[in-house]
Amino acid sequence: MLCKTMNTPTLDQIRWHRSIRQYTDDPVDKNLVETVVAAAQRSSTSSNLQMYSVVAVTDVALKERLAQLCGEQQHIVQAPVFLAWCADLSRLDRICQLRGYEHVSEYVENFLLSAVDTAILMQTAALAAESLGLGLCFIGAIRNSPQRVIELLKLPRLVFPISGMTLGWPAAEPALKPRLPLEAVLHWEGYDCSLEGEVLNAYDKTMAKTAVYKGRQVASTTPGAQQKEEGAYGWLEHTARRVSTPKRTGLRQTLVDQGFNLR
Amino acid sequence: MLCKTMNTPTLDQIRWHRSIRQYTDDPVDKNLVETVVAAAQRSSTSSNLQMYSVVAVTDVALKERLAQLCGEQQHIVQAPVFLAWCADLSRLDRICQLRGYEHVSEYVENFLLSAVDTAILMQTAALAAESLGLGLCFIGAIRNSPQRVIELLKLPRLVFPISGMTLGWPAAEPALKPRLPLEAVLHWEGYDCSLEGEVLNAYDKTMAKTAVYKGRQVASTTPGAQQKEEGAYGWLEHTARRVSTPKRTGLRQTLVDQGFNLR
Repeated sequence: MLCKTMNTPTLDQIRWHRSIRQYTDDPVDKNLVETVVAAAQRSSTSSNLQMYSVVAVTDVALKERLAQLCGEQQHIVQAPVFLAWCADLSRLDRICQLRGYEHVSEYVENFLLSAVDTAILMQTAALAAESLGLGLCFIGAIRNSPQRVIELLKLPRLVFPISGMTLGWPAAEPALKPRLPLEAVLHWEGYDCSLEGEVLNAYDKTMAKTAVYKGRQVASTTPGAQQKEEGAYGWLEHTARRVSTPKRTGLRQTLVDQGFNLR
Repeated sequence: MLCKTMNTPTLDQIRWHRSIRQYTDDPVDKNLVETVVAAAQRSSTSSNLQMYSVVAVTDVALKERLAQLCGEQQHIVQAPVFLAWCADLSRLDRICQLRGYEHVSEYVENFLLSAVDTAILMQTAALAAESLGLGLCFIGAIRNSPQRVIELLKLPRLVFPISGMTLGWPAAEPALKPRLPLEAVLHWEGYDCSLEGEVLNAYDKTMAKTAVYKGRQVASTTPGAQQKEEGAYGWLEHTARRVSTPKRTGLRQTLVDQGFNLR
């Protein structure tokens, strides 16, 4: 396929990406973080409103507390830098006060605008960092206990942590994880999933071979029998299990408490 | 500042970005779109769930209709390709049906996950496209009449257009728009906006000089007087005016209608 033969340094960089969860002991210079965030600021932002902030954490005690709040992921402590990427409408609020206007921020649109602005910023920062040889891992678990993260990082009203990120020098280079075939994701002239079944099954087989989703101990349904080892299973089964369990159901309340009313 | 002297090809690419709203008549090969989206699929995606789809539109009649729905932006028609970047939980729904699980998708968390996944994908695609010499502009106005875009692009339940994008060969190279000073956006060890006032005022002056926000005809408050020309104003005034006006207030209803319950 011609797709795979087209190259630019940026395409190569994009295709290199893997999440890094093991870091060397080397520190990350503050200036590198600044370089990465400043470059990311060049990205598109809706109406130039720049509805984001990032809190960089290097303090060990603070990282330990964050690790506790983010599902005990130890690489949060090990990584020299933790970044909290935040949707930020509070700056707009302060600007409205300054200029004598009333800030309208209570709609879903306002939250979505700032969340997308933030995601664009953090993904550009990710690629900028990787181009400097740094490794990183997004931490969605920052939303496990968002209220406590908000207190810990002193986030004011109208600021909300969208994702965390560990940042450091990679001590491992994990294998690339296959993604869905392009046909499952890219539609022409209109959405069409009529041929999706075959594509998903092919991906399922590919993922099963990588054994990413290993068998685990499960209780036998036969009375008196011991635990049995479940066989490896594919992406379809993993995915169905994953999304049939409610997760972070308290997010709405925390958002409302932070001033994002989602009207 | 050392920040500005650090270079990698990807950093240079990131710093080059400007939104392109004028395109040449040259077509964009389908293969280029595939290359860009396939590369973007390598980006991080929460739990490898890949909660996104993109609808590529080249049909002229369809682009004309989209332009009407997206605030009459003529570059939507002029650009050879229009891309609709969609949060997509419908694939997960189909997978749950296939494997006999009940899909939990009604929480704000589910919408946020898919919106962030989508934003990460589309921003990576933006950089991939720019590295191939293409130009683009995000179209947030795809959410002006989301229900009609959903019908036009045949988006099923649990698919929602987060942003549009025009894509083509640049016929202009607009000036870079200054961004907020880094200090306004990057915080260390905790959020701190105590010195923000000075930083915002400096940025305001910078932006006023670029005359991005030009004076416009405004009705005089003096009875009987003609319209007067308002002077150029800065980013603070522009921003305060922009965010004190409600926009896209019907988004929540369309999201609920599409199955995103935002509980």
